[in-house]
Amino acid sequence: MELQKSPLAPSSFPEMPEIDGVKLSTKACGVKYEGRTDVLLMSFDKGTTIGGVLTRSLTCSAPVECCRDHLKSGEARAIVVNSGNANAFTGRLGTASVARTVEATARELKCPENAVFVASTGVIGEPLPDEKITSALGDMKTDLCSNNWQGAAEAIMTTDTFAKGATIKTQIDGKVVTINGIAKGSGMIAPDMATMLSFVATDAALSPAMVQNLISSGADLSFNSITVDSDTSTSDTVLLCATGKAGNTLYNDINAPELADFIQALNKALKNLAHQVVRDGEGASKFISIAVTGAETDQAARRVGLAIANSPLVKTAVAGEDANWGRVVMAVGKSGERADRDKLSVAMGGVTIAKDGQRVEGFDEEPVAKHMKGQEISIAVDVGIADGQATVWTCDLTHGYIEINADYRS
Amino acid sequence: MELQKSPLAPSSFPEMPEIDGVKLSTKACGVKYEGRTDVLLMSFDKGTTIGGVLTRSLTCSAPVECCRDHLKSGEARAIVVNSGNANAFTGRLGTASVARTVEATARELKCPENAVFVASTGVIGEPLPDEKITSALGDMKTDLCSNNWQGAAEAIMTTDTFAKGATIKTQIDGKVVTINGIAKGSGMIAPDMATMLSFVATDAALSPAMVQNLISSGADLSFNSITVDSDTSTSDTVLLCATGKAGNTLYNDINAPELADFIQALNKALKNLAHQVVRDGEGASKFISIAVTGAETDQAARRVGLAIANSPLVKTAVAGEDANWGRVVMAVGKSGERADRDKLSVAMGGVTIAKDGQRVEGFDEEPVAKHMKGQEISIAVDVGIADGQATVWTCDLTHGYIEINADYRS
Repeated sequence: MELQKSPLAPSSFPEMPEIDGVKLSTKACGVKYEGRTDVLLMSFDKGTTIGGVLTRSLTCSAPVECCRDHLKSGEARAIVVNSGNANAFTGRLGTASVARTVEATARELKCPENAVFVASTGVIGEPLPDEKITSALGDMKTDLCSNNWQGAAEAIMTTDTFAKGATIKTQIDGKVVTINGIAKGSGMIAPDMATMLSFVATDAALSPAMVQNLISSGADLSFNSITVDSDTSTSDTVLLCATGKAGNTLYNDINAPELADFIQALNKALKNLAHQVVRDGEGASKFISIAVTGAETDQAARRVGLAIANSPLVKTAVAGEDANWGRVVMAVGKSGERADRDKLSVAMGGVTIAKDGQRVEGFDEEPVAKHMKGQEISIAVDVGIADGQATVWTCDLTHGYIEINADYRS
Repeated sequence: MELQKSPLAPSSFPEMPEIDGVKLSTKACGVKYEGRTDVLLMSFDKGTTIGGVLTRSLTCSAPVECCRDHLKSGEARAIVVNSGNANAFTGRLGTASVARTVEATARELKCPENAVFVASTGVIGEPLPDEKITSALGDMKTDLCSNNWQGAAEAIMTTDTFAKGATIKTQIDGKVVTINGIAKGSGMIAPDMATMLSFVATDAALSPAMVQNLISSGADLSFNSITVDSDTSTSDTVLLCATGKAGNTLYNDINAPELADFIQALNKALKNLAHQVVRDGEGASKFISIAVTGAETDQAARRVGLAIANSPLVKTAVAGEDANWGRVVMAVGKSGERADRDKLSVAMGGVTIAKDGQRVEGFDEEPVAKHMKGQEISIAVDVGIADGQATVWTCDLTHGYIEINADYRS
């Protein structure tokens, strides 16, 4: 099945500058796909720190287990990513396959094994032909260069309909720092064909503890606030590497004012990448922002938002361009979080449709109907308890989703 | 949109005998629908006990709040049900509307108000025109009869494509007792058009505590073990009434051997009704049984089963007749319950496809492919931890679901 480029895709891939200390190389290794690149090697200069956020799935893949273990070192020298085969649910074969890949990469790049990270995305349950990857590492090392970010984003795609990248420049105590990121995923979904991966690099100097801290909190506001169909992959992986080449001072306090601009820029880049994943959601025709206020805590607000975002009834209503606030109320109710039914309000496209637990009599339906016909849908819910707030993002549920996941037989 | 009768519907409505102490009456009151019955009055003789299970939704409807309050009395004299309007998210108007209905029913039937129960299903957010119901109660009282169970099941339908009933006879200490039940719902879904309601009556003599005990544990194994699309209605209500006319001894211990046959029969009837709800799931083309074994506890097994049953990827795979065990593994992983990845096994149609955390090399694909083409799909998963087990039921996710919920504008 030939997938059409998502109607929600950005107009083009961004111009991505080099990041001092980061080199990239891609190759068509034929792991599964023919006639396209399917392996990415990222190499990092000595002194690069790393932090990461991994799937919470209890049936996680062998590469995820390896990343979890190696993150303890806090040092990154290489990331090896393949598309086409997730190396998930492959038992002891999968673990051995990861070990061989790590060993070969460490040997080739002359670095410690626990500074090598691997990620795989594609079919579940098929043994990974790792020799296709390890035998290519020599050539890939030779080809390493620093201006190949778009190629890198393309090599990690599976059912993605467009390559996903984001870049941003900011400053830490007067030193210019750059953040580049790539991502793949048609949502946290389709684990036998797709999964969510993102690799972000910066030339900022950040301690291992700080880089972990930054990616954990940043992921909460970006990748952990999106959903396509509520299914969690066995392989979701987000890694942030900091080469330190920008030469800024190291800060140990995440609240240091000198870091504020950098954190804001990083979170913006992460959110941009996360949004691109939603915009490539299988069958997506509309991008939906759901802002929840008035919850008991920010975490509670996020859970309410995700309950709305994961509701098939809300998602089909948006697909049908129906401002169906009753389904939004239903989803709030099933979230398990506190909500005051008699204070609840719902707005769509900025127009309040329900307030104080009742439909607003005579609200202006015309702007709402017009809003629902657009590609960017906004839903705002106040649950009337306290000050907790969060925004989550999702896409609608259309015939396209069913076509991709039911009609198509791999 | 004219809905086709579900391909999974039973061949006919069962012959339902009378239950001594129960009378039924239905009427076309025009609450919303035209040209069909839409209100049901059930009356019970003095001495009837009642227990119930209500939605856990935190945005539950006014009728649900009334039932929760009146269940404390343990006594049932009447149940008033309307279809077409859920009286949910109607604020103080909704509460007042329920109060008027209860008051009018108690006056008409000369019974205490807290022995009157109400249930509503249909559109959310529209004030309920309760005078259409209360003004009909006099005629409905006159029409009460005991052999109108099919009519009762029809009056409470909304988007249901067939009326749902179940009946079973059993014994308690040598006395024959009968259990009749009706249900409606196209799943726990479509809260603006549908919801899950079930009313079960028996002539057995059961104390209020026992009847509550029986319906709570019975609902866990039936209505709480089904899902169509993971959405929870604001109005789900299951009530069990026991008239005591069979004249059996009262037992206070749910483990009394004299009750074993009755409990088995009751649970069978509840499961039958719950299965009919799934068989009428919106767009359903296949009925899916998911048996989970090897979990930490029975509750954990149920949560694993529901994670599988609620996964859009599993449901679309079944719709596509694809024995996609990778998606089952993914769903186990996201359930949050313990599973041993290296002991996990998955069978479909009785054929083990994956075992000890790996695909079974060379398993016989032909019977599996044949099984997936059928209407009754069985998935069995062992998570390799302990002895907890549960079975849950769902249906597949098809274009029909999208058509009903997105393409159709009410």
